[in-house]
Order: sequence, then C-alpha cells, then structure tokens
Amino acid sequence: METTSTVTLQDTIETLLKSKKYATLRDILTTMNPVDIAAIFEELQDEKMPLLYRLLPKDIAADTFVEMDDETQKFLIHSLSDTELKEVLDDMFLDDVVDMIEEMPANVVKRILRQSSPEERKQINMLLKFPEDSAGSIMTTELVILRPSMTAEEAIKRIRRTGVDKETIYTCYVADNLSKLIGIITIKDLLLADDDTKVSELMDTNVISVMTLTDQEEVASIIKKYDFLAVPVVDKENRLVGIITVDDAVDVMQEEATEDIQKMAAITPNTDTPYLKIGIFETWKSRIPWLLLLMISATFTGMIISSFEDALASSVVLTAFIPMLMDTGGNSGSQSSVTIIRALSLHEIQFKDLVKVIWKEVRVALMCGVALSLAAFAKVMLIDRLLLGNPDVTVFVALVVCLTLAITVVVAKIIGCCLPMFAYKLGFDPAVMASPFITTIVDAVSLVVYFLIATSILHL
Amino acid sequence: METTSTVTLQDTIETLLKSKKYATLRDILTTMNPVDIAAIFEELQDEKMPLLYRLLPKDIAADTFVEMDDETQKFLIHSLSDTELKEVLDDMFLDDVVDMIEEMPANVVKRILRQSSPEERKQINMLLKFPEDSAGSIMTTELVILRPSMTAEEAIKRIRRTGVDKETIYTCYVADNLSKLIGIITIKDLLLADDDTKVSELMDTNVISVMTLTDQEEVASIIKKYDFLAVPVVDKENRLVGIITVDDAVDVMQEEATEDIQKMAAITPNTDTPYLKIGIFETWKSRIPWLLLLMISATFTGMIISSFEDALASSVVLTAFIPMLMDTGGNSGSQSSVTIIRALSLHEIQFKDLVKVIWKEVRVALMCGVALSLAAFAKVMLIDRLLLGNPDVTVFVALVVCLTLAITVVVAKIIGCCLPMFAYKLGFDPAVMASPFITTIVDAVSLVVYFLIATSILHL
Repeated sequence: METTSTVTLQDTIETLLKSKKYATLRDILTTMNPVDIAAIFEELQDEKMPLLYRLLPKDIAADTFVEMDDETQKFLIHSLSDTELKEVLDDMFLDDVVDMIEEMPANVVKRILRQSSPEERKQINMLLKFPEDSAGSIMTTELVILRPSMTAEEAIKRIRRTGVDKETIYTCYVADNLSKLIGIITIKDLLLADDDTKVSELMDTNVISVMTLTDQEEVASIIKKYDFLAVPVVDKENRLVGIITVDDAVDVMQEEATEDIQKMAAITPNTDTPYLKIGIFETWKSRIPWLLLLMISATFTGMIISSFEDALASSVVLTAFIPMLMDTGGNSGSQSSVTIIRALSLHEIQFKDLVKVIWKEVRVALMCGVALSLAAFAKVMLIDRLLLGNPDVTVFVALVVCLTLAITVVVAKIIGCCLPMFAYKLGFDPAVMASPFITTIVDAVSLVVYFLIATSILHL
Repeated sequence: METTSTVTLQDTIETLLKSKKYATLRDILTTMNPVDIAAIFEELQDEKMPLLYRLLPKDIAADTFVEMDDETQKFLIHSLSDTELKEVLDDMFLDDVVDMIEEMPANVVKRILRQSSPEERKQINMLLKFPEDSAGSIMTTELVILRPSMTAEEAIKRIRRTGVDKETIYTCYVADNLSKLIGIITIKDLLLADDDTKVSELMDTNVISVMTLTDQEEVASIIKKYDFLAVPVVDKENRLVGIITVDDAVDVMQEEATEDIQKMAAITPNTDTPYLKIGIFETWKSRIPWLLLLMISATFTGMIISSFEDALASSVVLTAFIPMLMDTGGNSGSQSSVTIIRALSLHEIQFKDLVKVIWKEVRVALMCGVALSLAAFAKVMLIDRLLLGNPDVTVFVALVVCLTLAITVVVAKIIGCCLPMFAYKLGFDPAVMASPFITTIVDAVSLVVYFLIATSILHL
C-alpha cells in the first residue's frame, strides 16, 4: 500500500516539476516523511534533483539527504555549494556521515572533511579506523553523559541544554571523571523521580555494554535480547566512547539475515544494494564461482556412476530412481543444515550442544527415513509397477530403493547438522556449509549406498 | 561470551540453592538483568523454581517473569499464590499479558483473568479478539495521550504523573476529544521546547499509522523504514487504539526471517520455540510432509528417465552426467528464487517489476550458462576423457552435456524468478515456491532437454 501511493506521487511530482509549480511542490514535500522524499529523489531524473532539493525546508533537507542511497547522495553533493553541504553535514549525526564517507570517492570525501570542524574531523577519522562490521564502525559518539553527583533536575536541565544534537536522549550514560562508564539511566527514570534525587541513586549500575571491536551481529543480538533502545560502547579501559541505537541494530539484523539466506543459496553475499540496483555483471560475479565449484565437485558423483556402469547396464531401471534418491537426500540434508545454521545465528545452540543436536537429528531422521521408505515402497509398487506397468520394477528393486532412501535420509541429516556445527567451531561461516555443499556430499553418499545395496540384493 | 558466562553462573546458582545460601543468591540475582535471570529459571529443575522466584526483589520479579518461556511461566503460575500472581500481572504490560494468555491452558487463563481488574479484563478480551499476526494482536493499549491545547510544561507534567505504567513515554500521541489521532510528539521535542509552547504547535501532523488489521510484517517494515521507536495503531474511524513498540517489531522481523528461511528449506515454519526445546515428533511433523510431497513429485523425473531408457541403454555414459546437470540446474534456480523471495520480503521489488526482473535474470543466466558450459566442456574433455581415460566420453557427448547445461541454467533462472513473483501476485507465500519445488521442476526440464539433445546429436 505504502509503495503504491509513492508511485502515483512520483508521477505527480515529476509533472509539477516539469510545469515549474514550485510552491505546490513545496507544499506537498512538507507533508511527507523524509524517508519517502528520499525515495522520490532516488527515482528522479538527475538534472532536476538539485532544484527539487532546494525547495525542501532546511530541517527536512538534511533528514532527507541521510535517507538517500549512495548514488543519489554522490550526485547531489556535486551540485551543492560548499555552504549548502556544510548545512547538511551540521544536521547529520556523525555515524551517518561516516557511513556516507565510506561509500564516496576520494574527492568527495575531501570536500566533506573540509566542511567539518577540526573536532568533527578528529571524530570522523577515529570512527573510520574501526574495522568494518565492528561495533566501533556503526556507533555514534553523540550521546548524553551525566555525572553521578547530579540531581534529577540538574540532569534534565543538562539534557534540555545539550540534547538537540544527540542521537538519543532517552538513555543517558553516567561516567566518572575518568570517563569510565559507571551506570545508565533513562529519561523516564529521571522524569518520574523527585527533582532532588541524585543520579547515582537512580542509575542502574548493572550496565551491559559492548567493546569497540565486538562484531555488529553480536551487538544487534544483545539489543534484541534485552529490548534495549541503545547499547553503550566502551574501549579496553571501560571508557565510554559511543553508543549504538536500536535503528542501526535493526538494519544489522536484517542485513545478517539476508546474508545468511544468500549464503545458503550459494550466492556471495551483497546486502548493501537492493536487487534492482545491482548491475548484471555484479550479480553474475556473486553467483558464478559457486556454480562452477559445485559443478566441478559433481565430478565425483559422475565417477561413482561410471564405476557402477556395469550394474546400471544390466538393470537400467535403477537409473530412473537416481533423481528421487538424490533430491530426497538433498532436501533432508538441507532441512537439517538450514535449521542448525539459523539456530546458531540466533544463539539458540552452541558447539557444546553437538551431542544433543546429533541425538535429536538422528531420531528425527529415523522417523523420517521409516515414513519415507514405507511411502516409497507403496509408491514404487503401485505407481511405477502397477499403474505405469513397468515389469522391470520388481519387489527387490523396490526394496533396494527403500533401503537406500532410509539410509540416505539418516546420513543426510547427520551430515546436515554436523557440518555447520564444525564450521562454527572452526571459526568458518556455518551458512557457507549449507545446502549446496551438503547436497554434493549427500549425492555421492546416496549413490554409493544405492549401488552397493543394488549389487548385493539384485546380485548384479 | 554472554552465554558462556551464564552457564558457569547457572552451576553456581544451583549449588547455592542446594546449600540454601539464600542471602548470597539474592545478592547475585540483584546484579543481573531480568533477561538473564529468566534464562537461569528456564534451565532450573522445576521444584526449586518458586523458592528462587520468591528471592527476587518485587520489581525484578515481574520483569523476569515476562522474559520466561511459556513452559516456565506455566509452571511458576501453578505455584504462585493469588496475591503473588496479582503482583506480577499488575507489573506486566497488557500486550505481554495477552501474549502469555494465548499460550496458557484454559484453567490458567481463568485464574489470570480473575486477578485482573474489570477494565483490564475488557482490554485483554478486546486484544485477544484480533487475528494472529495482525497489528491489533501485538499492540499495547498503554500509551501516553496528550491534548493539542496543552502546553509543553503541562504535557511533561502529565507524562510524569501517568508515565510509570506506559510502555513508552518517548513518543506521545495527540488526540482530539473524539479520540481521533491528530499528531505525534516526542518527549525530546517537549523537553527541548519552551515551557509554554502549545502541543499543537510542536506536534508532527504527518502521522504514519497502521490499522488494527495490518499484517505484523508490514508493521515491522514500517518501523524499520522510518526508524520509529513506536507506531500508532488506529481503527477504521482513525481513533487511536494502541501502539506497537520497536522491540516487538524486532521480534517480528526475526521471526519472519526465520520463517522465510524455514520455508525455503521445505520446513513447515515454527518460529516460537528455540531448536532444542522443540520435541522430535514436532520436528518430524514439520519436515515429513514436504519430504513426502517432493519425493512423490520425483515420480515425474523417474518417468522421464524410463521413457528414454533405450537411449540410456545404448549410451550408458550419459547417466554419469545426470547428477551434475540436475545439481547445477537446481543451484542456478535456487540462487534466483531465493534472491527474488528475499527482495519481495524486503519490499525491494513488486509484481510490476516482473519484466525488469526477468530481463535481468535472463542476462545473468546467459552469462552463467556460457561460463558454465565452457568450464564443463574443458572439465569433461580434460578430466573425464583424458585423466580418467573414459573412451565413451566423446566430443559429441561433451557437446550434449554443455548445450544441456546452458539451456538448463537459463530455464532454471527464469523459473526461479518467475515462480515466486507469480506466487506473490496470486497471494500465495513466495517462500513456499522456493528451492525444493523449483528443484523438482528444473530436474524434469533438464532431463527432457538432455535426452532430446542427446538423441538428436548422438543419433540414439
């Protein structure tokens, strides 16, 4: 619904731009949320962008700029004067400036830094040094710091005086005179307390914080776990250096889920750019390495089939069941692997649960194996033999297929749960160990089992 | 790290419980976050739970109770006195009470309702009536409502007087005397304004709200898109009936991502319970229907192979390439389908983008197809023919394999992007159309293409 209305609005705005109805345009833009205005800019033809941008009221302009994608920002910066650029930068939070700088070419970065104050430049350079995906790289240094000796009234006064530039005023941080983080306090606590109660009495001293080098995924999971609006970031000496707010954590969570999904489907992750904005060469590059690798690794399954060529030649009917056995094995394995990978991502399980996990998967696998075998036996005898009237499908062939199926399902589920667990333990990404790799391994196993059982039962 | 320390603490707490060191236990629990205390309870042996619970300071007790899983809550409720239960309920937010009630047996629900005031009972019954997954079912009715005629000072006073029971005081809602939502205002705006500025001057009248029946996924995506801390919920007459806060939206987002991942792996979604807490029968039940369905649908691939039995019998070497062709087709298809499903989930694309999507996928598919065919040709000639010395692998066989591969990849990617788009358009869940189904369809297509090309090139 949201997006459909944006589309019509897009047309209206483009028409008004063409007919130079600037007053009307300004009226429309003033009623809109900056996020939606940014979407209009992203769809707009480039040459009209600066014109429309200058129609925006100053306070909305900066908020809108922050919400635009890199390409739109880059284009707009080129056409802004130094004064206009400075106005935008003054209204942006430092973490947003840093995010933007990371995606800009060197000349734009230089222009941005030239418009910043020496203090801001120092902060920006500090934030830029943190490794990608670390807490330091997504934190903001604009936060409200209180002293333990302040009263609630003094604290509220301080917030009213300094709060306008801070990313959140709802959680405030209490630090001693060495900048060490000693407590947190919400503005709700301050407002609901008596005016002369000391901050030290009101603050919560059981502070949960993260380090500058903590992985951003860990940060997001802490914010989610404790329902935080923000989490403080400290350095090795427990000095408060920044905060990460829930909106950034939400973005991280979404990115990480997308990344896991892409890896499970054998795609090199790209979570920064929406699908339609990624070039086809980029898309190709993220997909082809895995397809090649998995194709080459299928050489083994080919070799297995070749080595049982004689058995196949003497009982061609066996070939007809290969796809079903491989697919069922692959599906069983990826059910387990995907479940385990997600549980690891959500910290529901850890490596120490390995035995519990295997024991659970084995029992589920046995139940699945039995059910599938019985169904397969009925299917083979009823559909393949009776309905399709294939005389080569004997009870013994059905037995071979069912036995193989049961064994394959159990093996597939064990491999499916173990591989991600071991990858996790060894520090590799469990998601990369997902379905495609497991499919290749399970294919090989199921074929070997199939031919071994076939040669012994059917005496090939 | 977080979880490792909890484990050691768990042992300590159980030992202290055994040796009846209650004062020490109380000291330890007081330093902990309710979320972590709840985790301790969930791991604890049942009979000690009420004892430990009574050691908790009153304010922590209720917060801890909210964080526990259904089983632990159910057990604890049975051993709490009516007075104790009332204390817990008084401290809980209504949306949490409703969440809990939904998972409880009838006798527990009755006990809970008996401890609530008539007004609370009315609200609870109203909330229980909303369909699962709707905004109404996850909203809370405890919010701060201001009048447009109030001054900033009066508004802050009102918040200080009534805020203690509200789920968030950071965003306040302005309603007229018919309860219609006319604006929103943050406490930041109120605190940073002059005391006698009117709420009507400060409030933002461009309110983005959701309806009681809006899907919870849509709600979460709005909160994420606009970086909201809360979103107001209105009825058909635009009367303010509740709010949904960002912490609930975060949970919804995580659940929906897990649900998508499970469906992509052909598992009936279960996002309420962590992996290790789901019984094996439950797990089996969520997996077996899909395995059965997909196994039965593999009958088609079997039929295709059977109908080309003569071709296979006269050139057994063709069988060896079947797994490679099927797997590469399956992988290519699921790369596309998973990408499209995720892009649909994140509202990056819509059905109207179908042509753009297909055009993009076709070009990527052609590039992948060409690259894979060339690599496959080299692989077949070098590895299968030269290295493994299989004389049956002729240049013509290699040609058949490569041509099939190229066509399969293109077809797989087109099916992979179209199926989820059409499912979305028709109102089905795109994720259910994911890899497993596409694998089955692509398998069938690749086999038919393979045998048709083989019979014509190799004159079988």
